[in-house]
Amino acid sequence: MSASAVSFQPPFSLVRDVAVLRQNVAAWRAAGLRVALVPTMGALHDGHLSLVRLGLAHADRVVVSLFVNPTQFGPAEDFAAYPRQEGEDAAALRTAGAHLLYAPDVAGMYPEGFATTVSVAGVSEGLCGDHRPGHFQGVATVVTKLLLRVLPDVALFGEKDYQQVQVIRRVVTDLDIPVKIVAGPTVREADGLALSSRNAYLSPAERAVAPTLHRVLQEAAAALRAGEAAALVLERARSALSAAGFGPLDYLDLRDAETLVPLASLGSRRAARLLVAVKLGRTRLIDNIPVLADAP
Amino acid sequence: MSASAVSFQPPFSLVRDVAVLRQNVAAWRAAGLRVALVPTMGALHDGHLSLVRLGLAHADRVVVSLFVNPTQFGPAEDFAAYPRQEGEDAAALRTAGAHLLYAPDVAGMYPEGFATTVSVAGVSEGLCGDHRPGHFQGVATVVTKLLLRVLPDVALFGEKDYQQVQVIRRVVTDLDIPVKIVAGPTVREADGLALSSRNAYLSPAERAVAPTLHRVLQEAAAALRAGEAAALVLERARSALSAAGFGPLDYLDLRDAETLVPLASLGSRRAARLLVAVKLGRTRLIDNIPVLADAP
Repeated sequence: MSASAVSFQPPFSLVRDVAVLRQNVAAWRAAGLRVALVPTMGALHDGHLSLVRLGLAHADRVVVSLFVNPTQFGPAEDFAAYPRQEGEDAAALRTAGAHLLYAPDVAGMYPEGFATTVSVAGVSEGLCGDHRPGHFQGVATVVTKLLLRVLPDVALFGEKDYQQVQVIRRVVTDLDIPVKIVAGPTVREADGLALSSRNAYLSPAERAVAPTLHRVLQEAAAALRAGEAAALVLERARSALSAAGFGPLDYLDLRDAETLVPLASLGSRRAARLLVAVKLGRTRLIDNIPVLADAP
Repeated sequence: MSASAVSFQPPFSLVRDVAVLRQNVAAWRAAGLRVALVPTMGALHDGHLSLVRLGLAHADRVVVSLFVNPTQFGPAEDFAAYPRQEGEDAAALRTAGAHLLYAPDVAGMYPEGFATTVSVAGVSEGLCGDHRPGHFQGVATVVTKLLLRVLPDVALFGEKDYQQVQVIRRVVTDLDIPVKIVAGPTVREADGLALSSRNAYLSPAERAVAPTLHRVLQEAAAALRAGEAAALVLERARSALSAAGFGPLDYLDLRDAETLVPLASLGSRRAARLLVAVKLGRTRLIDNIPVLADAP
């Protein structure tokens, strides 16, 4: 590729209206182009931008949505405080090569009279589903709307929100939404902390403690792979978090990687995942890693 | 149009597999053709066929789905007994000019692991929603799936199931399903009985009584338009049904034609509708008619 091709800045637009969004996508479709969607709540970090880059590998045009969705926040949660920085986000997306930022307002997403809910049994229950009532209904409903507004070929979500990805896979399969779901790996700081818009809430002291979360997961995964009993390993990991200054703990569990059913032990037949949600000061952090059994 | 054009029999196919369905629709789309969907539970009568004809007026190709949806029947309802006559239905559709009959089996619609529900507040509540718990969740979920499997330009539903039409309009608007919903008027026998697959359950004696349902609605609508108090008119209509041998009554109500909110009187600002559901012997009959206020 020539230097001039590398420096070519693709057109980039900010769209708030669903009709304009659909016109853009229809024009791309008419030109035979494939379209990717990266749904976000803004406050973008390199985890989001990695999904844009992954989108560019799967499609010709990448739409990023930015919508801080009120229905997935509980009444005591941080909807009002959630970081909002649309100008910075738009600049970062343009640099990353995204083509369109779709940023509707709340009334554009939920007009007067709105009354429909998409809910998912099974994978929505337990874990964050128990600790954030209504959260995954809010996620399933807004993601269904975003997918049907854009009708992309592929939609990309980060594995940091692992349960969310499983819920969305379930909705897309069950409702026959014609889109391929691709999960991007969690992007981490050099010290292992998973990138999250909520990391901005951490004090310097909390930020110094935060990487322990990933280290504890890694040690637990290694112990499980070495054949230690799951109940013992999980209890030790929970104690380690508490000792490091985390708490209270929502959960630290070993689950089937697809159904999220609790696993009493690491079997060899199915992929497993360690998932954690815990408070650090006033900030709720989540993380997860795969735990593969040794080949039999 | 020449005689030979009139007698031309369009190609007609029976499809059970969603991938084949989508291939057919994609080929039509690629040819620039508009597509209509008429969802049915089979046991087709002229009400259904009128929707096929309406579909042909709105689109170049008409898909009819035939699926007796188990999730919209209550445990004490007539799922097992519901009339099934696929061969006759296919023949009637071919004659009516439909192009494709999509008839999946239950496992093709709800594969193992299926866990997602679409539910609608407001218009789903009251009326049949109170008397058939879970019914409109079942309807909203399966219609969402059918619309997303076919992705038609237009989908047609009969006004005989008036509350269902309002529920579907709400789902399509709220979830941003890219389809236009068209409601077709109720088709009636010469004596006024609304066509229904369940009319086949009526004994000859019940069939003779059944047209009273529509007559009572018409008389109530006339009294309302003449300015009589709604409470009185509805009470007289309920008594008339009981005297004719109907009962028990699920409801006979005056409602806002769009939101289905109960109306205490006929206002001049919004369209109103009379809706009834009542047993006749072992058969549950429903019907509804518009009640327009006189111009102010």
